[in-house]
Amino acid sequence: MDYERPQFFRVMQYADAAAGDVIDMVSGNPDWEPPGALRDGLVEYADGDPEQFQYPASEGLLELREEIAARRNVALEQVLVTNGAGEANHLAMAEGLTRGAGDEVILTDPVYPYYAGRTNLLDGQARYVAVDDDGQLDPDAVREAASEDTALVVVNSPNNPTGAVYSEATVRELVDIVEACDALLVSDEVYDHFDYGGEFTSALAVDSAHRVVTNAFSKSLAITGFRVGYAIVPEWLVDRFRTRHMLTNVTSSRPAQYAVWQALRETPPDYYGRNREMLRERIVAFTDALDAAGAEYTTPQGSFYVMARFPDFSGTMANVERLIDEAGVAGMPGAAFGESRTDWFRFALVTPRAEEAAERLAGYFD
Amino acid sequence: MDYERPQFFRVMQYADAAAGDVIDMVSGNPDWEPPGALRDGLVEYADGDPEQFQYPASEGLLELREEIAARRNVALEQVLVTNGAGEANHLAMAEGLTRGAGDEVILTDPVYPYYAGRTNLLDGQARYVAVDDDGQLDPDAVREAASEDTALVVVNSPNNPTGAVYSEATVRELVDIVEACDALLVSDEVYDHFDYGGEFTSALAVDSAHRVVTNAFSKSLAITGFRVGYAIVPEWLVDRFRTRHMLTNVTSSRPAQYAVWQALRETPPDYYGRNREMLRERIVAFTDALDAAGAEYTTPQGSFYVMARFPDFSGTMANVERLIDEAGVAGMPGAAFGESRTDWFRFALVTPRAEEAAERLAGYFD
Repeated sequence: MDYERPQFFRVMQYADAAAGDVIDMVSGNPDWEPPGALRDGLVEYADGDPEQFQYPASEGLLELREEIAARRNVALEQVLVTNGAGEANHLAMAEGLTRGAGDEVILTDPVYPYYAGRTNLLDGQARYVAVDDDGQLDPDAVREAASEDTALVVVNSPNNPTGAVYSEATVRELVDIVEACDALLVSDEVYDHFDYGGEFTSALAVDSAHRVVTNAFSKSLAITGFRVGYAIVPEWLVDRFRTRHMLTNVTSSRPAQYAVWQALRETPPDYYGRNREMLRERIVAFTDALDAAGAEYTTPQGSFYVMARFPDFSGTMANVERLIDEAGVAGMPGAAFGESRTDWFRFALVTPRAEEAAERLAGYFD
Repeated sequence: MDYERPQFFRVMQYADAAAGDVIDMVSGNPDWEPPGALRDGLVEYADGDPEQFQYPASEGLLELREEIAARRNVALEQVLVTNGAGEANHLAMAEGLTRGAGDEVILTDPVYPYYAGRTNLLDGQARYVAVDDDGQLDPDAVREAASEDTALVVVNSPNNPTGAVYSEATVRELVDIVEACDALLVSDEVYDHFDYGGEFTSALAVDSAHRVVTNAFSKSLAITGFRVGYAIVPEWLVDRFRTRHMLTNVTSSRPAQYAVWQALRETPPDYYGRNREMLRERIVAFTDALDAAGAEYTTPQGSFYVMARFPDFSGTMANVERLIDEAGVAGMPGAAFGESRTDWFRFALVTPRAEEAAERLAGYFD
């Protein structure tokens, strides 16, 4: 696969420009409310002294880092606040590829396209391991692909686009593999709050100097535009991470960091639970209606994406455009995520009209 | 010079931990008020629909890009909003060093340390051209240093730390030099609003496919913590810049972008003029008091830094710490900026107590 720029924005532009009413299931942009405390935090910040408007510490606002360290039960030193999980993943991949421990990057197929794009950008060699039909990753297949050339293994659980949640055994084996070949595991856990079966295990559960955990508040607080994420890095990598972060971004945006800190402190657990339940219901409604369309689909264990395929209608960009124009439903082409899902489409359940969308698809393929 | 992590944060930490009252002249953090419209913009943003909290376009909020394009008289397409000038410079240097047109980076001495750190990070070879005593860069010296190995020439005018403002002739010659050796000129103009003699010329004045202009609202709107900057890039680089930005940061923080957009629209020119006048007065007060200390110093034509040196007291980190502990004044060591100013200190005029600081220094060296 040759990724340049991920195609999300291209599909969104096409959908925006379409003539009719289009149900947008393209992006991973939550459509639900951010916590009230987040809005309040921003208003409170706006009233601060001039000093509050200046550079925070490069590694992030201390209060926010403390809150993250306490929640994740790690040393404060290991927490670096980044410009979203995007920067955290970028830093981790850049470190993995510049430490002289190989240039291969093991990715899953299907893959979250940014990982593939970054591998190209950073001159790594992507090596894809296909997941099974349920999106599960077989650690033995990863072990087989791994070698002394392996610099990185990059995974995402709960997974975008498959909805798979990796078992604790898988996570342990992945750590074991990177340790054996002196590589880094990058475990992107940005959908950790959207785990419907309670099976999710963070890579933090396995102590290792070879794993970097990345995350963000983009999905859990419904603020993809705020760009507040973090990396939890092993001690030997702390200085290198901070240096690269400083020389890339100096620091992350402070109003957003402050608002997230307030939201973390003030938001009751119920907020997260309610959104999870709402998504669970959307998944049921969407997949029930897909049954009527004669579609095959995945039922996500986590995240908020459903992959579906329709008879004689491959998952190309051209067919995405046809669905936008002729069915009024915008999804992502499976081909954007790799070789193994080229027959499929990915639908993001970020609209209250998910069921209606499935009905439109049923009508279109009738 | 071997820069790893710029030392600003280290000095700030030392000053914060000091026992007595310390006048902070370390960072480039404005101490004056951001515009009221910026605060209002943030409050207005906080009240938006959930949709407003999600990813803006990767290249930045359209309204903000339009405002920048109109002000700088460039095509909208050429404007990319970044996480401060820091990211803009990072992207430009990364592009210059990965296009296969050399690996040397021509920097000035003294240098803004982030440029040197990025050169190391990106595997470039730094080549320093010393400026004269007034901080002026001799284009002939740059021409002599330039060769087919030159990937980048990175300059900053108005300059940090020297306060020099380059003439239009210098800017034209720099563009001519990078064109001749197929390199990129990165012109960081973040202090453009702090030009006391009216001599500043943006590199935008010279049309060329070889120059990237970077800037930010950090200084002009007194919001270094917001991380809103931009790059203006030649057309052939637009796609590459966007791709690298997307794969590094996805996009920049939206609340900050929105607030800056509002501030740009609503803030009268008087805001900028008043701050410039205030700084002009601080410079006079500070340098007058330095005369009493028997110090040599530079009088900045632009930016808001004064470099000073004192008899038999070199510009080392150890002496910076002595000035913090014994004189109650925190500055930056000249050694942090290169080989040519190791006898000097840099003082940032970001405190209403600038005159008092100079008096303390006079007392200390008396």
